Amino acid sequence: MGKALEAVVTEFKEHMKKIAYYQNALGVLYWDSRTNTPKKGQERQAEVIGFLSTQVYQLTVAPEMNSYLACLGTEANLRVLDPVIAQSVREYRKVNERLKKIPPELYQEYVILTAKSENIWEEAKQGNDFKMFESYLTKIVDFNRKFAEFWGYQGHPYDALLEPYEPGMTVAVLDQLFAALRQATVGILKRIQDSASPVDTQIFTGFFPKAKQEELGRYLLQEIGFDMAAGTLHESEHPFTGGANHRGDVRLTTHYYEDDLLSSVFSCIHEGGHGIYEQNIDPALINTPLGTGASMGIHESQSRLYENLIGRSRSFWRRYLPKVRELFPEQFAKVDADQFYRGVNCVMPSLIRTEADELTYNLHIILRYEIEKALIEGSCQVSDLPEIWGNKMEEYLGIRPQTDAEGVLQDVHWSSGSFGYFPSYSIGNIYSAQFAAAMERAGLKLDQLIEEGDFQRIREWLGAQIHRYGKLKTPAEILKDATGETIDASYLIRYFEKKYREIYGI
Amino acid sequence: MGKALEAVVTEFKEHMKKIAYYQNALGVLYWDSRTNTPKKGQERQAEVIGFLSTQVYQLTVAPEMNSYLACLGTEANLRVLDPVIAQSVREYRKVNERLKKIPPELYQEYVILTAKSENIWEEAKQGNDFKMFESYLTKIVDFNRKFAEFWGYQGHPYDALLEPYEPGMTVAVLDQLFAALRQATVGILKRIQDSASPVDTQIFTGFFPKAKQEELGRYLLQEIGFDMAAGTLHESEHPFTGGANHRGDVRLTTHYYEDDLLSSVFSCIHEGGHGIYEQNIDPALINTPLGTGASMGIHESQSRLYENLIGRSRSFWRRYLPKVRELFPEQFAKVDADQFYRGVNCVMPSLIRTEADELTYNLHIILRYEIEKALIEGSCQVSDLPEIWGNKMEEYLGIRPQTDAEGVLQDVHWSSGSFGYFPSYSIGNIYSAQFAAAMERAGLKLDQLIEEGDFQRIREWLGAQIHRYGKLKTPAEILKDATGETIDASYLIRYFEKKYREIYGI
Repeated sequence: MGKALEAVVTEFKEHMKKIAYYQNALGVLYWDSRTNTPKKGQERQAEVIGFLSTQVYQLTVAPEMNSYLACLGTEANLRVLDPVIAQSVREYRKVNERLKKIPPELYQEYVILTAKSENIWEEAKQGNDFKMFESYLTKIVDFNRKFAEFWGYQGHPYDALLEPYEPGMTVAVLDQLFAALRQATVGILKRIQDSASPVDTQIFTGFFPKAKQEELGRYLLQEIGFDMAAGTLHESEHPFTGGANHRGDVRLTTHYYEDDLLSSVFSCIHEGGHGIYEQNIDPALINTPLGTGASMGIHESQSRLYENLIGRSRSFWRRYLPKVRELFPEQFAKVDADQFYRGVNCVMPSLIRTEADELTYNLHIILRYEIEKALIEGSCQVSDLPEIWGNKMEEYLGIRPQTDAEGVLQDVHWSSGSFGYFPSYSIGNIYSAQFAAAMERAGLKLDQLIEEGDFQRIREWLGAQIHRYGKLKTPAEILKDATGETIDASYLIRYFEKKYREIYGI
Repeated sequence: MGKALEAVVTEFKEHMKKIAYYQNALGVLYWDSRTNTPKKGQERQAEVIGFLSTQVYQLTVAPEMNSYLACLGTEANLRVLDPVIAQSVREYRKVNERLKKIPPELYQEYVILTAKSENIWEEAKQGNDFKMFESYLTKIVDFNRKFAEFWGYQGHPYDALLEPYEPGMTVAVLDQLFAALRQATVGILKRIQDSASPVDTQIFTGFFPKAKQEELGRYLLQEIGFDMAAGTLHESEHPFTGGANHRGDVRLTTHYYEDDLLSSVFSCIHEGGHGIYEQNIDPALINTPLGTGASMGIHESQSRLYENLIGRSRSFWRRYLPKVRELFPEQFAKVDADQFYRGVNCVMPSLIRTEADELTYNLHIILRYEIEKALIEGSCQVSDLPEIWGNKMEEYLGIRPQTDAEGVLQDVHWSSGSFGYFPSYSIGNIYSAQFAAAMERAGLKLDQLIEEGDFQRIREWLGAQIHRYGKLKTPAEILKDATGETIDASYLIRYFEKKYREIYGI
């Protein structure tokens, strides 16, 4: 590498480091706004977050950045650069091109619209009044249709919206995956509903003091290998994984309901999966845009793998029911691991996505995917959504919401303009089953390891195959290198078949 | 005001707002580093804080800032400008001039030195080895002597170091104040030690669970009028008041020792005093350099007023002992308010400043002031400090440290280069007695108000006379307008005389 090139690399690294510092600050401030900021400080903190985000934006599109990318991004230079730098150049070029394709006035208008519409959505949901939200959602859909055209796509316009959440994913692929998953899921659900259910969820009734729930959450996080010296656990309205956006500071949150133990237990394990991912990204990727998850889907695959494939396994409760019993002796003195295992796997169609069981969860996602795709291609109207929603719920889950609040208005995503996000949840579920199968093929006996509490080997495999790469590889590359395959729903379907056959005797 | 001037004011305001946003972020990040940041995230968070501080510095000395100050700072313009803008111009001019007087290379060297020396000090203190720290402290003193020359002064070089902490304060004034205070204090202490002490501190022995201490702290903070919707209470190694640096987000911390109830009680009330000040600064001062305390001394006067004049009064414990008893029935069932009051006012010379009682605390400060002054004027050497320290302790307090760790190495301040800071603590005590006397003259019967729990009238007086002005007035102006006087130690001395005469029968 020539001296001149080296000098540009040095400047580029300094520039990236500045962006990273702002992102570290933003991560902590956002987390703080959900956990600690007092009520009267919230508005100002949102302004501060907006101000620092603007600094990130300005550094990203700055003339210096453009000249670094132009200089370093030639085919010849990309070949000689350190792979981390080369991939950082590619990543920033992608981000930058995307930002530049939207006319700034249009984007400004959109930011104002979505800020307003989140408030309107909240009111509409409270007032159970879709009509109130309809004109906002119509505008947001129109903007996203325009964005898709600006950004460009090869197959379906919705592909352009999938790209930031799941790079490389397309409608062509999702249509096939989701059709298969939907059909299989609906079939299993029918058989479960026709069976004489042996699952008792009454065992989870009781009073579970917050402090004890927190103790259990911390214990389980430590067991699965979340590093508390590089992370924290706090409470917030909705559970999430945040922090300073680097592996040394990963902050999980949960929410405690004193009449519901499982909610905090599974949200801890779920966020723990996200957190273990972040804590095991290669430290060499700090100060680059690559020191984060490869995609929303890959991230979700880790949280779902821990939450469901590990946390909802029989082996897990064989090992940890004694701990639960120790903390809540009254409630669980007479419950055995098998009952507990069946209980946490109870299948019961629900109107609300966030309350769905492991099996029916994907139906909620597929429904949203189908609606988003139709809105973006223009084959349905926003005004028809309550009707379409109801029909699909009835077709897939056999239940129909009686109100908009428990139907089309339930999620915040659309009000903030996050079209293309929902599929990540089910993509994550599909990946998670593929990764688990690859681990088994690599000789890891998951059930045995879990029952022995030997999570280190699981973590090592995930770390070596997935975590350490951060965003250095694409989701498809990670999947290919870790499993030898492309995305494939059949692993998840077979996992469901086996699990529910065994639990429900179907 | 002409159009051109108005345009400059608008730009100046925008510029100040940017600085304020960074300071809001910095406040939260600093607080976070003391309360929530996990161990493995600390180093990076310190870097982020350093990075954002550099942005504040750069905006402060930016060419635009210089041109705003040059344009707005003419006598003619200052006269027509809004008083908040005019005072902001004066404040930034002062800060800017101070910054410019130190050659950047020299300052850079100093920053590196103090960063290192804080670590060395920690080691030296742990190893009880002043020699280890001596060469660092010598360099820090030399730097500060140089800084004093660069900054300039009229009377004593130490005046230049007092200026940032207590604008307008001088050695000439402090020498007189502290001589009188020292003499009176030493006299009272002697008489107390000669008396047959009727004070029993055994009543505070016991086990006080953290959760209950927190409950009591929150209760007392709410009682004295700290607004929990605009603030928080968390735990940290050392208690402090921080937050987002604006009135809507003021964060207090305390430390809980389960064998010591009083420590958290009085640190809560102390920080509460700081916090009430910050929460009552005029909202019009946000986004200016004036939306903060007038000086360290004025700030400390508020914390000390709440902690000592209110929190260590008989009326206070007449009102709140029942609450304490409710939370800790075992420990205090047989203790009456008078015993409790005497107990929290026990005078007992201690080697450690932070453990000192209300009376002897000032002797610790005066000792440090005398040493700092001598070091800066060059009349003593760093190598002589352990000896000088021991002699002064013996002379003022009648006790002599056997080790450096419990003597000259006990405080962090010198290792970070904060010469000129220590006097603020006693200046605050002196002010607090003056403010209390002025309140009485204004017709507020403090004892009665406290016993009735009517803190609103106290808060209103402090708010109207002190808090709302932030840094819009100088400390001397605040004092003059609130009390009609200049700084005067006799109020504090009379308060001590009365209090201890009554408690110890001296």
